[in-house]
Amino acid sequence: MKVLVLNAGSSSIKFQLFEIAGWSVVASGSISRIGEEDALLNLRWIEDGGQSRQLDQHHPIVNHHVALEQIVAHLRDTGALTKQAELKAVGHRVVHGGEAFHLPTVIDEDVITAIRQMIPLAPLHNPAHLDGILVARELFPGVPQVAVFDTAFHQTMPRTAYRYAIPDAFYREHQVRRYGFHGTSHAYVGKRAAAMLGRSFDRGNFITLHLGNGASATAIRNGSSVDTSMGMTPLEGLVMGTRCGDIDPAVLLYLMQHLGLDHQQIDQLLNRQSGLIGLCGVNDMREIHRRIEQGDTKAELALGIFCHRLKKYLGAYMAVLGEVHAVVFTGGIGENDAETRTRTCGKLEPLGIVLDETANRAESGGERMISSAESPVKVLVIPTNEELEIAQQTVEAVG
Amino acid sequence: MKVLVLNAGSSSIKFQLFEIAGWSVVASGSISRIGEEDALLNLRWIEDGGQSRQLDQHHPIVNHHVALEQIVAHLRDTGALTKQAELKAVGHRVVHGGEAFHLPTVIDEDVITAIRQMIPLAPLHNPAHLDGILVARELFPGVPQVAVFDTAFHQTMPRTAYRYAIPDAFYREHQVRRYGFHGTSHAYVGKRAAAMLGRSFDRGNFITLHLGNGASATAIRNGSSVDTSMGMTPLEGLVMGTRCGDIDPAVLLYLMQHLGLDHQQIDQLLNRQSGLIGLCGVNDMREIHRRIEQGDTKAELALGIFCHRLKKYLGAYMAVLGEVHAVVFTGGIGENDAETRTRTCGKLEPLGIVLDETANRAESGGERMISSAESPVKVLVIPTNEELEIAQQTVEAVG
Repeated sequence: MKVLVLNAGSSSIKFQLFEIAGWSVVASGSISRIGEEDALLNLRWIEDGGQSRQLDQHHPIVNHHVALEQIVAHLRDTGALTKQAELKAVGHRVVHGGEAFHLPTVIDEDVITAIRQMIPLAPLHNPAHLDGILVARELFPGVPQVAVFDTAFHQTMPRTAYRYAIPDAFYREHQVRRYGFHGTSHAYVGKRAAAMLGRSFDRGNFITLHLGNGASATAIRNGSSVDTSMGMTPLEGLVMGTRCGDIDPAVLLYLMQHLGLDHQQIDQLLNRQSGLIGLCGVNDMREIHRRIEQGDTKAELALGIFCHRLKKYLGAYMAVLGEVHAVVFTGGIGENDAETRTRTCGKLEPLGIVLDETANRAESGGERMISSAESPVKVLVIPTNEELEIAQQTVEAVG
Repeated sequence: MKVLVLNAGSSSIKFQLFEIAGWSVVASGSISRIGEEDALLNLRWIEDGGQSRQLDQHHPIVNHHVALEQIVAHLRDTGALTKQAELKAVGHRVVHGGEAFHLPTVIDEDVITAIRQMIPLAPLHNPAHLDGILVARELFPGVPQVAVFDTAFHQTMPRTAYRYAIPDAFYREHQVRRYGFHGTSHAYVGKRAAAMLGRSFDRGNFITLHLGNGASATAIRNGSSVDTSMGMTPLEGLVMGTRCGDIDPAVLLYLMQHLGLDHQQIDQLLNRQSGLIGLCGVNDMREIHRRIEQGDTKAELALGIFCHRLKKYLGAYMAVLGEVHAVVFTGGIGENDAETRTRTCGKLEPLGIVLDETANRAESGGERMISSAESPVKVLVIPTNEELEIAQQTVEAVG
């Protein structure tokens, strides 16, 4: 039996098909630029003989329905999924589950209504996810569909962590609170960290740093999220590829009053034109390092601010947790950028973190420990795998 | 010789008159509700015999000029300051010095112009300070006037701490950056902490927590501010009496888009109706404790959020500094609320903070150590004295 994981964005669908026995990836790929003349389909699959194959096609794809139909046709043609009966369930990544969902949930009409009601909290994401869910229901009638929410893992946060210091009514009547995101990734690497240390996850205290184009930090106590850096939206917290993260809220008022920007311009500025790209013109960390080597002071400042802010969240969550078993780096930057890890964890011996620089700098794509043997707090690098976590949670949800 | 310290607000003037030899307070007081029918003058002074006297008067005071004239007349009548020749200088508290001022500065026309230019950054404060400066120059012609800036102590912050992750142009052309405030208080208690530990200030690493109706945390490395929680304005950072502190910037966009609030309403909401008062209806910490005892869950939540956020800044600055010699509590709440100190510093043994609960709970108005003897990081309570710091910096500035 297999499980299909779908991540539908506003103009793209990513997918992975897993064989449940052994959790191997049978096929994976994406369709991007849906709605455009040169939509792009990428497909990778494993042939019967175990050989890996790849297909890339450009042609017009008008909407999510056509896109998913093509994915299904290709899965059939390649032999990855020849009949619907092989499919145990479809798992959908859904960014915002608000307070309604703290577990992966089998999708029915009520769930669809709830995801729709949360559109104001995730105007870019939830409509696309709904598209993906509705099309998948049409194409796989009778196959259970499961929603796995980016916010769900953080629903265990205490009120002191999720409430903002604004009047009650904004929380009760308008859902203004910290939700947190990247929950699937934080949960996955947290569980892997527990396994690496030989502890049970529900007895482990971890600080997980998911550093990709989006970035967030989470404090996990006894297997539960107790604080996280993203807020009501993914704008708050760490410096990201194009997002500013934490900023004096009065800056927004100043931009409106003195520069005449409206809320849409500010939204665009802080979500799309800020962060690393706003500071130095690029948001690819490898390119930032190349520019630093060439003496680019803006790139150096961008990396400096990125790591300073990360170090502050690391310290903040050490204080929240008290005892910490491991700090975990994941995501594109977290997994690959040794310099970011050095700057973030450097000089923290008084707090119990001792990095092993040789291990940190060693080239590796695998799970690894980069703290020294005597470090009271372990430092780990763990490649994230949100699709696998969604697949496993989906199968668990359908029982 | 004496030095007069003035703190001019939009409808009030506070003052203290110091005898420079020994730094004793000769007279102090305030005029509040300037411009109203029932303006209130409070005056305390020490008579020749050493006896303390007090005067309270209600009567109309039309403007800052009249207010300061009355203060000067009372100082003369009480014998506190009988002639101008006794006055070495007047020190003015000025909230915002932008990037122009990193030291107390003798006021000339250029300084006045610079303070005026910074009005957009501190629209409520700088105009009132200018009023006070101009009136004081008229009333004490020839006496040096010195501006002591709340922002000055933080001008040593590195760029990685003071820059926000937004495009360069907003910093270069529009002065958008972290400035930090309460600098006079953070510097004062930092120096006192160094004295208490028998170290020189410029070899001391401290985290100073100024917790009054406004609240901010500062990381001091070798006597210099290297990060602070308030930002471009005093709105960012910790939860305060009426200010929200840190919040997802997207919350402001959401309030505009979905609730139709304009920037003035949001300014009012986040600066005046949020923080402790927004969460539980009061911003007096003693009253909050009374309500908690009566089972008020909103008051309990307000205190919980206040302390959770404080603990995160404490941890963040421990990570920034690495080695920390002392954590210092000051301001009304910091000096008087043992419960806040317990919650903030509790369970931080793995980070090197061990509170002595008996010392913490002991009634005292003085400087004191409340960590246990074996605590690697000392915890101190130090009553702040911004007026004394302004007086001393003023005298130093005039030489």
